[in-house]
Amino acid sequence: MPTAIERRARLLGPHMTTFYREPVHVERGEGVWLWDTDGRKYLDCYNNVPHVGHCHPRVVEAICRQAGMLNTHTRYVHDMILDYGEALVSKFDHSLSSLLMVCSGSEANDVALRMAQAMTGKTGIIGTDNTYHGNTTAVSQLNASKVPIGGYQPHVRKVSAPDNLMPVGGTRAGQAEAFAKGVEQAVTELEESGHGVSALIICPYFANEGFPTLERGFMDRAIDAVRKAGGLIIADEVQPGFGRIGSHWWGHEKLGCTPDIVTLGKPMANGHPVAAVVTRHEILTTFQEAFKYFNTFGGNPVSAAAAHAVLNVIEDEKLVENARDVGAYAVGLLSDLAARHDVIADVRGSGLFFGAELWRDGKPATELCAAMVDEMRDRGVLLHSVGRFSQTLKVRPPCVFNRDNADQLVQVMDDALGAVK
Amino acid sequence: MPTAIERRARLLGPHMTTFYREPVHVERGEGVWLWDTDGRKYLDCYNNVPHVGHCHPRVVEAICRQAGMLNTHTRYVHDMILDYGEALVSKFDHSLSSLLMVCSGSEANDVALRMAQAMTGKTGIIGTDNTYHGNTTAVSQLNASKVPIGGYQPHVRKVSAPDNLMPVGGTRAGQAEAFAKGVEQAVTELEESGHGVSALIICPYFANEGFPTLERGFMDRAIDAVRKAGGLIIADEVQPGFGRIGSHWWGHEKLGCTPDIVTLGKPMANGHPVAAVVTRHEILTTFQEAFKYFNTFGGNPVSAAAAHAVLNVIEDEKLVENARDVGAYAVGLLSDLAARHDVIADVRGSGLFFGAELWRDGKPATELCAAMVDEMRDRGVLLHSVGRFSQTLKVRPPCVFNRDNADQLVQVMDDALGAVK
Repeated sequence: MPTAIERRARLLGPHMTTFYREPVHVERGEGVWLWDTDGRKYLDCYNNVPHVGHCHPRVVEAICRQAGMLNTHTRYVHDMILDYGEALVSKFDHSLSSLLMVCSGSEANDVALRMAQAMTGKTGIIGTDNTYHGNTTAVSQLNASKVPIGGYQPHVRKVSAPDNLMPVGGTRAGQAEAFAKGVEQAVTELEESGHGVSALIICPYFANEGFPTLERGFMDRAIDAVRKAGGLIIADEVQPGFGRIGSHWWGHEKLGCTPDIVTLGKPMANGHPVAAVVTRHEILTTFQEAFKYFNTFGGNPVSAAAAHAVLNVIEDEKLVENARDVGAYAVGLLSDLAARHDVIADVRGSGLFFGAELWRDGKPATELCAAMVDEMRDRGVLLHSVGRFSQTLKVRPPCVFNRDNADQLVQVMDDALGAVK
Repeated sequence: MPTAIERRARLLGPHMTTFYREPVHVERGEGVWLWDTDGRKYLDCYNNVPHVGHCHPRVVEAICRQAGMLNTHTRYVHDMILDYGEALVSKFDHSLSSLLMVCSGSEANDVALRMAQAMTGKTGIIGTDNTYHGNTTAVSQLNASKVPIGGYQPHVRKVSAPDNLMPVGGTRAGQAEAFAKGVEQAVTELEESGHGVSALIICPYFANEGFPTLERGFMDRAIDAVRKAGGLIIADEVQPGFGRIGSHWWGHEKLGCTPDIVTLGKPMANGHPVAAVVTRHEILTTFQEAFKYFNTFGGNPVSAAAAHAVLNVIEDEKLVENARDVGAYAVGLLSDLAARHDVIADVRGSGLFFGAELWRDGKPATELCAAMVDEMRDRGVLLHSVGRFSQTLKVRPPCVFNRDNADQLVQVMDDALGAVK
């Protein structure tokens, strides 16, 4: 009998990697907990897709009810997408009143880039040099670590991403200005190359870049430069969105800016394949006039029902408040831990998206961080790493994560730091 | 109170069109039936997404069970995708043994094009001049009717699509040769332009082209030309696949060819957002080596469970046999109808994908066909049009469509033809 790992390699290809030295063979999930096929229980500190907790009964119930009633596409009229869509856009600045539903964050960003192109008539895109926005052919041009097939094309310019310990321009105080100068330089280059600027696309929490601590207004000057050149601002809220960061519903609100286009994905329907673009009515209309876009599965009644249930659970269970409270509590615990472990060079985060950056001998501790990820998995706590050198332990659990869970996380981290030294 | 149509225009944009002059406000579905919010019942002769019937209880049950147990991504090991994937690839030629799961047919074709590029090192693509393969930035280059944003790029060459009444080269007998010559010409052009040939991508049933009647071996010479130039064959089975055409599980089997890459979508999980690429192990491996592709929602346990239930229902309810039997019966009825209505210029199809082409005064009867679609909707039968001039009534119902349903369809078509004349 081949093992599951062997079957995977044969069926899904040898490069379909798993997390952890010893992969977790999962079977069941509930709230912040996962169980493997041996019945072992894990504290899930990493999965943002099950935003309101693994298998939340209200989301499951919404999916079951609607799947048993009707699931078809949006060439018919159905109330579910309208009820959901109106509830969703009410969470945004009043200008962002229109919605296009798709199936994945990749599809959302692929559409967003074309919306910018349709609006501006230009093709140039500015992103950061350490990011990931998805995997379609077009969107993969923005990837830092995954070189697109065929290589990078000249319409994309990458600016240095902000960072706490390795700030752009050398100092934290001067980072916003240095970042803006990078964007201004990219604007100039794109205008000179004839591409022009269609959009700056960023995750407003810079999640893949290691979620640096940024002051409100950090992006203002960069945004000005893009808008002066006629470009749009795309906020990829796939990771920070839906209240995860505790202080706000959306990452861009924390920065104090209103983008032209917002893309949503992973947590939107707790794992059901749902994603969306939220934008101004004018932009959606211009896009639709330029291209007859239709997405068969996007916004179907079951997807809308699942997403609406998530929205309702966030409200009813006060998960934004929970993210704020538990996140602050956990960051406090990690700060205490940092006082006892020299390898913790920085503790940061907002809401239930936080972590600890590991350095050793004056350098990012990539190997130690990898060892910690595996050691904690062996001790029943699932998390992973992020950052330019994968040197930061990243914690991004389902938003029902509570103070007891934070205690367990930090206790296990403490033990593991002792063990891997 | 705004109407649902007004809410749609405001929220989803003014160009989010609906089917039918009088849109159908759907509420419930079961088998081949849809009900609107007024309780009116419609015979669904058009929706291929609910492949095994609207809200099939076994698919709904599979979704509910797995959604309540676990829904996470493929960075963990889970049996569901392995069990499903092995069952799925067993339906293909033994060479097509590997699987990559995604969320939409668009994502599947976007990946397939890059697989071809990774395998061949070339970028040229050949498609037909009247097709649709999806809506990502890259895939939209293949669209005939939806001009991509930014216009067409020179790496795509479009060849004339086969047709029953307007055959390539002027005669049905010479159509295969004429089609092949078109492909050979495209090969030459792509080699001369320096793009080279990465792939020929076709729907092997030419579904969007009006599903012309093609003999086995129709594609042989064209395929030879592509393979001699080092290119791959991509079969987009989103429409003909999963036994719809009755004679075979896949459209390419009907033509008697084995593609290098097969893409799957819409009907795969009865409406749950699931799609896939099935290919040779070598191609998947080469793609993965060239690009670290990962799809968060693709192949999650719920998606795999839904898709597996569809596969099981097709087998257990003998839906391929049903498609063959009922399709042949319906085409017979339509042929009888054609004898009494001069406007029916051709009746054709295979399994539960068939239709009647309307001509008047020696020309494709576009307006009459549109009127028929609306007239039949008003008489409680839902179908739509296809073809270069939208002149063909297209019937493509859930595969549980039975002979009684066919009787009703043809009776209503008969009445409607009388009414719209």
